[in-house]
Amino acid sequence: MKAKIYNILEKEGSVSNRIFEFFIVTLILLNVLAIGLDTIRNLEPRVVLLLRIFEAFSIIIFSIEYLLRIYISELTHPARTKLGSALRFMFSFFGLVDLIAILPFYIPYIIKADLRFVRIFRLFRFFRIFKLSRYNRTLQMIWDVIREKKSEFIMTFFISLLLLLVSAFLMYYVENPVQPDKFRNIFSSLWWAVSTLTPLGYGDVAPVTTPGKVISAIVAIIGIGLIALPTGIISAGFIDKISSRNKEDRKEGTKVCPHCGKRLE
Amino acid sequence: MKAKIYNILEKEGSVSNRIFEFFIVTLILLNVLAIGLDTIRNLEPRVVLLLRIFEAFSIIIFSIEYLLRIYISELTHPARTKLGSALRFMFSFFGLVDLIAILPFYIPYIIKADLRFVRIFRLFRFFRIFKLSRYNRTLQMIWDVIREKKSEFIMTFFISLLLLLVSAFLMYYVENPVQPDKFRNIFSSLWWAVSTLTPLGYGDVAPVTTPGKVISAIVAIIGIGLIALPTGIISAGFIDKISSRNKEDRKEGTKVCPHCGKRLE
Amino acid sequence: MKAKIYNILEKEGSVSNRIFEFFIVTLILLNVLAIGLDTIRNLEPRVVLLLRIFEAFSIIIFSIEYLLRIYISELTHPARTKLGSALRFMFSFFGLVDLIAILPFYIPYIIKADLRFVRIFRLFRFFRIFKLSRYNRTLQMIWDVIREKKSEFIMTFFISLLLLLVSAFLMYYVENPVQPDKFRNIFSSLWWAVSTLTPLGYGDVAPVTTPGKVISAIVAIIGIGLIALPTGIISAGFIDKISSRNKEDRKEGTKVCPHCGKRLE
Amino acid sequence: MKAKIYNILEKEGSVSNRIFEFFIVTLILLNVLAIGLDTIRNLEPRVVLLLRIFEAFSIIIFSIEYLLRIYISELTHPARTKLGSALRFMFSFFGLVDLIAILPFYIPYIIKADLRFVRIFRLFRFFRIFKLSRYNRTLQMIWDVIREKKSEFIMTFFISLLLLLVSAFLMYYVENPVQPDKFRNIFSSLWWAVSTLTPLGYGDVAPVTTPGKVISAIVAIIGIGLIALPTGIISAGFIDKISSRNKEDRKEGTKVCPHCGKRLE
Repeated sequence: MKAKIYNILEKEGSVSNRIFEFFIVTLILLNVLAIGLDTIRNLEPRVVLLLRIFEAFSIIIFSIEYLLRIYISELTHPARTKLGSALRFMFSFFGLVDLIAILPFYIPYIIKADLRFVRIFRLFRFFRIFKLSRYNRTLQMIWDVIREKKSEFIMTFFISLLLLLVSAFLMYYVENPVQPDKFRNIFSSLWWAVSTLTPLGYGDVAPVTTPGKVISAIVAIIGIGLIALPTGIISAGFIDKISSRNKEDRKEGTKVCPHCGKRLE
Repeated sequence: MKAKIYNILEKEGSVSNRIFEFFIVTLILLNVLAIGLDTIRNLEPRVVLLLRIFEAFSIIIFSIEYLLRIYISELTHPARTKLGSALRFMFSFFGLVDLIAILPFYIPYIIKADLRFVRIFRLFRFFRIFKLSRYNRTLQMIWDVIREKKSEFIMTFFISLLLLLVSAFLMYYVENPVQPDKFRNIFSSLWWAVSTLTPLGYGDVAPVTTPGKVISAIVAIIGIGLIALPTGIISAGFIDKISSRNKEDRKEGTKVCPHCGKRLE
Repeated sequence: MKAKIYNILEKEGSVSNRIFEFFIVTLILLNVLAIGLDTIRNLEPRVVLLLRIFEAFSIIIFSIEYLLRIYISELTHPARTKLGSALRFMFSFFGLVDLIAILPFYIPYIIKADLRFVRIFRLFRFFRIFKLSRYNRTLQMIWDVIREKKSEFIMTFFISLLLLLVSAFLMYYVENPVQPDKFRNIFSSLWWAVSTLTPLGYGDVAPVTTPGKVISAIVAIIGIGLIALPTGIISAGFIDKISSRNKEDRKEGTKVCPHCGKRLE
Repeated sequence: MKAKIYNILEKEGSVSNRIFEFFIVTLILLNVLAIGLDTIRNLEPRVVLLLRIFEAFSIIIFSIEYLLRIYISELTHPARTKLGSALRFMFSFFGLVDLIAILPFYIPYIIKADLRFVRIFRLFRFFRIFKLSRYNRTLQMIWDVIREKKSEFIMTFFISLLLLLVSAFLMYYVENPVQPDKFRNIFSSLWWAVSTLTPLGYGDVAPVTTPGKVISAIVAIIGIGLIALPTGIISAGFIDKISSRNKEDRKEGTKVCPHCGKRLE
């Protein structure tokens, strides 16, 4: 029985697991849509009722799934005692995500709380998509690349921050006397700098003086380089990863690296 | 006879095929232009007449080509019977494209239908460009890269979707009380999120509150990372592909110039 | 004498050549600035006079350089006769650029012509920058990458064109009934599509209907992929080029590839 | 004593150094925030007082640090004499940064100067972040890639400049007669060109004529290529760097884990 449920919920590649995952993903995406519909005012009572029913249905499904996952936690999160396994699952990342995703429905029955704020936790269901067994390897790879290039990204962030600050300061001194309402202080100026360096493009804070326009142009051109930098880093990371994985696939060994736990030649 | 037609229509590299392909591509691009001109109102009757004549001319050419392709289907789509070959061609991707591209002209003679809607199918002719034998290898490569990195793209899409949803929700709670008309509901908020993360930049929905601007800035900066991710993945895919193709070429024994990739003997 | 001039004008790395190139690049950039200043109306007569003097000075320098280059054409463009060398230089790419850059000044003395239109040719001087011996190898490499990936870029262009056309058509049918003035015909719609896919962001043609916004969002997201595609192709091209150049540097041979003329192992 | 201070200030990896660096980075970031808050007008006197106290506190810390760095300069910048070491530190890049960062506070006590202008030097503190020992290797690598690809970037810059100039000129001739106020001269036109090629997107200068829109569209599409070019160059640079570093690591004889790049023995 436990093994059967495990097969459905977790075993990668089995037919029942594929059907279950497809069903859950559909349910999650419909839930996201429902959360969006909930914010529309003056909805027809009929639609509101439908949304309530759908919400109740989803909660039942997700609650059953959560209980089943606790039930099979011995297999997914082995510990010495049954309680230990259950607790290990409940405090794992996805265990907490599962709990947070269903909690907002039960809270008003337990304590009195502002429903509006709590509802946002329903969005946590979306994290579940990243649990899909099929995409495990891919997500792991993307995550590895980001983690390995962490210090490169931090440096890029600091370089960008420096550029943002310097250009915001220069812009403030240049444009503040002419447009005191738009370049009121450094923070307005920073807002301009972010708009210029990213594709925001609201155009609500634009330079009017010639030096202001020259600074804008220079910042925008340097900004392209700053978009190119993380892209180049990510590219290099992926290529490095793929080539080392290819090597790994070719050489079948048993030695394991003490740092990352992966196989060595 | 059949071989001659085949040479003209399909044989890569032959002079007659090159002339034929150039003629067809020109005709397709002129057709696209004509479809565009058709949407201009109050065109001079002379121009309208010219467009009608050109359309009739194109249809005749494309119809003849379609019939000839059925005629030579024995060579391009070999099957046990002649009818089998014809059907295999007619239900192949490009067979259907060819049919859909000429159908809109004949439909009004067969059944009564809304011409305006049917006309859009004339755009299908454009797909024909991708059939050019010359670019077969390139398109195949681009397609291979996209297909091989499918799960990476799906993951990137889900990560982007999560970012869009979370930022749209936060923005809704922050900006809705101040600008209830612009951030009316989650869907307006999502529209803002897409504008911020992509180079849309309509600026019709912009934040006015300080937290709203801070969220915008953070989302825009993360957004650059999300542009960098698919770029890095595609780069890695192409490099992987090129290096494995180089290896294949080497394995096959034929000597290849390391500079231009062309075969030497 | 001839060798000395050759050293100054062409010999990469010599001190006199470095000084000469620095002088020419400065003169070209100042000329570009002068061309810009020329378009400002109501300039002070003093400034106009200065610009005229500077223009005359530049023309004299560039004319002398042009004559000297004809003089040393025996060394740079060897042919059987002196006249042959001179003609070979004059009809080479940079020979024509040099001529076109100085011609606009002499034309009014020869024939009567609209000066305004002819003046634009002065911009041709800018091409001279690409002749700098120092950057020869780099420009060659960038050019090689673009040429080798030509069919990939053409395919990307056609895919983008298809996306532009399909989205423009859909947008036209969706938005034309609501905003007949902005989405007047397919060409207005194409203008919207280009704005959406590139960082233009004028925001003068924006969708107002819900399906229009949904199409915009989808097109913008696909558009990111279309920005990623050429970037990935260029990355792959550069990496391929660098790695093959590295190999080339390591292996010193004499065989030459009959296709590209580069050394083989 | 000197060794102990050296450990805290400079020795990479030691616990005391980590705590010290965390403290300094926090202080720098808070200082940047304070500089920003300083530009807000009509701040409450209480907040102004707090900012003054914080500024005095920071100056004391940075001054002590500066003196300590002079004190340990024998270890960090060894020279024959103690004074030599001190001077070598004081005139090193980070020695100057440290001095400039604290100078603005002391200047008014020495000479009478415009405080507003001098204050901007407080921003120099930010450069200190790049001194963090942890990120030394990363910053070095980013710097190496940019320096090695210098001529590629210069070429890309010149190609972009040429495109900017040509498109600005064409646009000026096309749009000037219709919008003489917006496309007043080449420099206004250049401002449009920069807006079009970068994600600025202010939309204050937009074409209205059909040829103007066609030029815009073409420039924007070519512009994507110009964004792709530096990205591709940076990608190639990083990949080249990583692969050559991997080779170096292998050559040095120490075994390295192929997955995480860390040394094994």
